[in-house]
Amino acid sequence: MKRTLIAASVALLSSTAMADDHQQPNIIYVIGDGMGFEYISAYRYAMSDLETKELAETQFDHYLTGAALTYPEDDTWVTDSAASATALATGEKSYNGAIGMDNDKTSLKTVMEYAKQSGYATGSVSTSQINHATPASFFSHHPSRYEYNEIADLMGQQIVDGNASFDVILGGGQQYFIRADKNWAELIEQQGMRVIQDMQMLDQVEQAPVMGLFAQKGLPHAIDEGKESLAKMTSSALRLLDNEDKPFALMIEGSQIDWCGHANDIACAVHEMDSLNKALEVVNEYIENNPNTLFVMTADHSTGGLTIGRDGEYAWYSDRVMKIEHSIAYMKEKLLAMDSDQWASFVADAVNAELTQEYTDELAMAAEQHGEDREDALHKALAYITADITGTGWTTSGHTGVDVPVYATGPNSDQFRGYMNNTELGQRLIEIVK
Amino acid sequence: MKRTLIAASVALLSSTAMADDHQQPNIIYVIGDGMGFEYISAYRYAMSDLETKELAETQFDHYLTGAALTYPEDDTWVTDSAASATALATGEKSYNGAIGMDNDKTSLKTVMEYAKQSGYATGSVSTSQINHATPASFFSHHPSRYEYNEIADLMGQQIVDGNASFDVILGGGQQYFIRADKNWAELIEQQGMRVIQDMQMLDQVEQAPVMGLFAQKGLPHAIDEGKESLAKMTSSALRLLDNEDKPFALMIEGSQIDWCGHANDIACAVHEMDSLNKALEVVNEYIENNPNTLFVMTADHSTGGLTIGRDGEYAWYSDRVMKIEHSIAYMKEKLLAMDSDQWASFVADAVNAELTQEYTDELAMAAEQHGEDREDALHKALAYITADITGTGWTTSGHTGVDVPVYATGPNSDQFRGYMNNTELGQRLIEIVK
Repeated sequence: MKRTLIAASVALLSSTAMADDHQQPNIIYVIGDGMGFEYISAYRYAMSDLETKELAETQFDHYLTGAALTYPEDDTWVTDSAASATALATGEKSYNGAIGMDNDKTSLKTVMEYAKQSGYATGSVSTSQINHATPASFFSHHPSRYEYNEIADLMGQQIVDGNASFDVILGGGQQYFIRADKNWAELIEQQGMRVIQDMQMLDQVEQAPVMGLFAQKGLPHAIDEGKESLAKMTSSALRLLDNEDKPFALMIEGSQIDWCGHANDIACAVHEMDSLNKALEVVNEYIENNPNTLFVMTADHSTGGLTIGRDGEYAWYSDRVMKIEHSIAYMKEKLLAMDSDQWASFVADAVNAELTQEYTDELAMAAEQHGEDREDALHKALAYITADITGTGWTTSGHTGVDVPVYATGPNSDQFRGYMNNTELGQRLIEIVK
Repeated sequence: MKRTLIAASVALLSSTAMADDHQQPNIIYVIGDGMGFEYISAYRYAMSDLETKELAETQFDHYLTGAALTYPEDDTWVTDSAASATALATGEKSYNGAIGMDNDKTSLKTVMEYAKQSGYATGSVSTSQINHATPASFFSHHPSRYEYNEIADLMGQQIVDGNASFDVILGGGQQYFIRADKNWAELIEQQGMRVIQDMQMLDQVEQAPVMGLFAQKGLPHAIDEGKESLAKMTSSALRLLDNEDKPFALMIEGSQIDWCGHANDIACAVHEMDSLNKALEVVNEYIENNPNTLFVMTADHSTGGLTIGRDGEYAWYSDRVMKIEHSIAYMKEKLLAMDSDQWASFVADAVNAELTQEYTDELAMAAEQHGEDREDALHKALAYITADITGTGWTTSGHTGVDVPVYATGPNSDQFRGYMNNTELGQRLIEIVK
């Protein structure tokens, strides 16, 4: 990035500043969806050696500066991803379900919209569809997160109108942007924004604007396939935004930590953390070379009521977590397609453990069900088995209200220290890019 | 405190330092036993207004600087209070159960012993017995935390030998220090250390050394009686240590946050947090007036697998938590002493809520049991009822492996920023007092 390189050279001449004061800093804003402290701890210990206690170094070891409150402007202390993404993007609290709107359903200007107005290049990377709650709250305004087609329409229309609030947007979502009733991909390309559907094509994209839609909805879970996707998208987004002759603001979401948490699937969650860790390696390398970059990372909430240990036992079997080869969602799909008398042996292979009588009983009970009941019972059985084997606790299929970690480094990072409300992150970033 | 007051005056003359560089700082080291981030969040929201979202200001809003890893040097990632107190006191990892000893059962010198050697006055305040895992790990060395009499003997013998590692030690523990076979209280008083058993007497104690034993074992839960005990002991300890003409190191433990967590008793836990909050008000006032004081606060681990929200519902009913009037332990004791047909109405009054059929069924099932089974079933019923009413999740009667908060302010507090191992807290404090 030309200007930042100049800024860095200038900084060498100055003993008081690391970067040119006149160049607004790049912003890299990372959101681990559902990434409460429990996920940081679980990931670290899963990567480390239980016996020798040799700790793996992770990208989460650095830059921890504080914690954030996540509650929404609603009749509850427990937020959903839309209200919290809106708080993180706009600096304002809102109700659960809100996309970039306040409690009165008035649109709130987001940090990305402020950045764009100030001459920034902007972008977003996520492993969810690009119109999912978190990215959507940075780039659009809608009263309900669940109206995916409508949110896609808002994002598509921006581009067609020449008012796109992003230059690079990568994730999933083909089924919302390429519909029988509306082919936004075609309309977007006519406007000069490239649309690609194959991640391998990213390397051939030389400049923004670009939209990447790499799956019908969300990308596959990291544990099943796609361990490198987030790092690959992050690397491409940084390259393309850095090519623009201006500062940039990039939001990176590790979207599916939350999804694994909802499923009470510990192995899935740890592999999503690993996928984010790989993306952070790319980010950290960028930051080292471009010191005029403000890095802020947080979570929107914690998910699942994950606990490291359960049922009175002072243990968490990180080695057993790492022996599980597939997500519960993957196992369930395979199991539903096969005869139930093969279930126990498939599951034993997939989790690399012997099944107790209790576990096979759980599977047998699921086998007696039909239709959706069978799916639900099978999910429950697999969640129980993986939690019990590994000593993992879960209390909910939803979110919890615990405070979440905040990390920051780079110019102005001292504004992100200690306890803060999640809205303060949005407010401070807006002040910086304004 | 004479020297600190002089130091503060000196500081007024200096634009570069807040305190005299030549005076070693006082150390106030606070440990919330079991106080994971979930407890911080739960306490804040319990004190705040769920409807208006007006947040209560708590003493935990300030000075958050990072988080600490808690795992022991054992075959598990989940620590007990002894191993973690040993880590926090000595800077070395050890096995679960160890009191100031390493894995080879060699005594490790504690921060309090280093401080004493450097000419500090030292002390400890806890709501547990003074020979319980956390205070014991700062002042004694024993292979097993559960040998309470032996640990009391070690502490008593120190004093009798004229080698006491503390000047002020306040908490519970009469039954260990005043035994038929050994009356340490008498022997200790003969050595010139005052022993008091009535907390009201604290005000009349004009100088150290003093041992306060205010209960047979631990003090009563804050929710039942004793909301002010920790603040009162803290205030007295600070007064007495400050009177000594030297710097001091004081350990303050909110011991029973953990005990309420083990009992899966949310109202109990929130009131223990409030008791610690009151003690922190005293501490913070002291710090404001005595800037040459390093304040460090952390937890030894989190307990119970507490989660704010459960069972798929995006809610935590803080108002209902605050309507619960007694601890589960208190309710259980009362219920066991009355006829079981009065149970439902007693419980409804105690938790200030109507009991559902499910709740009365739980109580009825307990009523059918006898002896210990009855006690256990009753505890389980009360834990279920209070958790279900309030939307609180629990996964264990033991501890969990999640990272815990770290707070710091004052001289050298920048050494306690970001992620750190719990041993690093002990190591850095030892370096400071050495």
